[in-house]
Amino acid sequence: MTRFDTIRPVVWQDDHLQLLDQRLLPGETRWLAFHDSAAVAGAIRDMVVRGAPAIGIAAAYGAVFAAREAVAAAPADWLPRFEQALAVLGDARPTAVNLRWALARQRRQVDASTDDPATVLLREARAILDEDLAANHRMGELGAGLMTEPGGVLTHCNTGSLATAGYGTALGVIRSAWAQQRITRVYADETRPWLQGARLTAWELLQDGIPVTLLADAAAPALMRSGAVRWVVVGADRVTANGDVANKIGTYALALAARHHGVGFMVVAPTSTVDMALPNGDAIAIETRDPAEVLGVHGTPVAAAGADAWNPVFDVTPAPLVDALVTEAGVIHRPDTESMRAAFPVERAAQAMPGGA
Amino acid sequence: MTRFDTIRPVVWQDDHLQLLDQRLLPGETRWLAFHDSAAVAGAIRDMVVRGAPAIGIAAAYGAVFAAREAVAAAPADWLPRFEQALAVLGDARPTAVNLRWALARQRRQVDASTDDPATVLLREARAILDEDLAANHRMGELGAGLMTEPGGVLTHCNTGSLATAGYGTALGVIRSAWAQQRITRVYADETRPWLQGARLTAWELLQDGIPVTLLADAAAPALMRSGAVRWVVVGADRVTANGDVANKIGTYALALAARHHGVGFMVVAPTSTVDMALPNGDAIAIETRDPAEVLGVHGTPVAAAGADAWNPVFDVTPAPLVDALVTEAGVIHRPDTESMRAAFPVERAAQAMPGGA
Repeated sequence: MTRFDTIRPVVWQDDHLQLLDQRLLPGETRWLAFHDSAAVAGAIRDMVVRGAPAIGIAAAYGAVFAAREAVAAAPADWLPRFEQALAVLGDARPTAVNLRWALARQRRQVDASTDDPATVLLREARAILDEDLAANHRMGELGAGLMTEPGGVLTHCNTGSLATAGYGTALGVIRSAWAQQRITRVYADETRPWLQGARLTAWELLQDGIPVTLLADAAAPALMRSGAVRWVVVGADRVTANGDVANKIGTYALALAARHHGVGFMVVAPTSTVDMALPNGDAIAIETRDPAEVLGVHGTPVAAAGADAWNPVFDVTPAPLVDALVTEAGVIHRPDTESMRAAFPVERAAQAMPGGA
Repeated sequence: MTRFDTIRPVVWQDDHLQLLDQRLLPGETRWLAFHDSAAVAGAIRDMVVRGAPAIGIAAAYGAVFAAREAVAAAPADWLPRFEQALAVLGDARPTAVNLRWALARQRRQVDASTDDPATVLLREARAILDEDLAANHRMGELGAGLMTEPGGVLTHCNTGSLATAGYGTALGVIRSAWAQQRITRVYADETRPWLQGARLTAWELLQDGIPVTLLADAAAPALMRSGAVRWVVVGADRVTANGDVANKIGTYALALAARHHGVGFMVVAPTSTVDMALPNGDAIAIETRDPAEVLGVHGTPVAAAGADAWNPVFDVTPAPLVDALVTEAGVIHRPDTESMRAAFPVERAAQAMPGGA
């Protein structure tokens, strides 16, 4: 671990998985232990763990339990049970492609090796985690390099250590750029309804000694109009073949305002988030969650009784609004179908998504 | 009172003022009684009463107390004390011009009459209230008339009965258009940090039998992209001589997204909100409130301890983004300096703002 980088939310310990319960932060730091695949699927669904890369890593460990359970129940014919458990893990949340990507990668390991499946899968889960951490540090350098003049940055949701193996995607760029003194001030949207910005991003930045100023999501365009922001830096849950970006609800509003004000709009995501099997953002399944998340805060109702709510968790930012897409493979400026295809050959896409979207 | 119109937040009863405490809605319906001008100023500052027109009306009643107190304390030389009390009322909140407009109007009454000041001022306060109610019904008709095809509408903050004498500005248009079946669905931003949309707009629409769907503020552009919205309808706290609009933080974000999606953007405000003494929105004093409003919800902290917050209460929407400005005097399409000057002659502006901004 380097400077400004102390948090790891997904940890394999001895024979089980430990997840930092992100529903309780910042009020309480509680680790939950998981010993079976169904419970891991539940933790993903209930947002004990969240953030596209972290979900993928947790699911990869969930696959270890799935193999262990299937082999114990039916040593001679364990594969159907294993695949069923993978399907449950894969259905836990619909939008982040990293979940299916990690499970597809695990499924391939089983065919490629004659060793004990759980052993193989545990090794691969660790590789997925290590690769994600390395990708984040690489993206941090690449993204920080784009910030040629010091200025303020604005981020949305949580894309940091808590959302990944560690360090973060967009927040990794902010960590790197902060360390290089390329950022004068970090602004973070509170990110309703789940308040990932106020609860998680603020918590982890302060843990690592980076000061942060929160704002209501709808105040961001006024902040940009004031000239305080040079870059908006966000993560992604899925990037499609034309460069469209699905990310936390509110990202599209930032992209529109950033373009209007000449503020740079940077999307930071590992290649595991790129889904070349989908032509564009309209094909992405956008999760909607319980209206109660909007009608209340942390389980406490605040809205008038009887009101309905629309609670989409993600929105789609069209590629033309993206100034830079940063992956560990490099930077794509103003991504489009052509530049995406050049960076991510189709074989890779076909390999990543054997089960379909 | 007509259909879809049952709420009155500012009521003069016998010899004192009753205000519906908007900090407690929708959980509790509590009326507070006021008997002196300092307490009315405090109620405006603490947002017992809020909404530009309602603030003006409450201040007009506050002037009645101010006269009563000054005459009782110094019958022969009451005017200086009276003016001092008016200044305290005028300083309670900076952005809504209706506050200063109402106090300037009350100040002029004192010069124009030799009757008992408190009696004169009470009569005028009632007139201000009655005129606001009439203006809202007139604006309701005018604004609804712009909705030539049925569709969804999106509103922000609370601009309804609770923010005015009754019926509302933007919400008055929605009430009228709903009654005329020109609206298929009402969407309301929850409006962080104070949650006027979730708490107040939803409450008063449901009281009047109009169904409402809430959303997180940052979800509005995605809603527009889906095609569900034909008009964004908002109020205003100040409209300047070039047509710029100061309104609740988040309004500017809606205006940008509405223009991008070809959704109509309508601002509804009585002429008491028009400030022809200010050339443009850059000259408006924008109130910033306690960071704790962003760092928590309803007094309960939610953000990570140690985080700072930026909490501007209003933003400015440049006139070119406004498709229609509706006042009780008529509709101005795409307002600019010329059309504003034609609609609001300068004499009126000079009369309205004798004390300066």
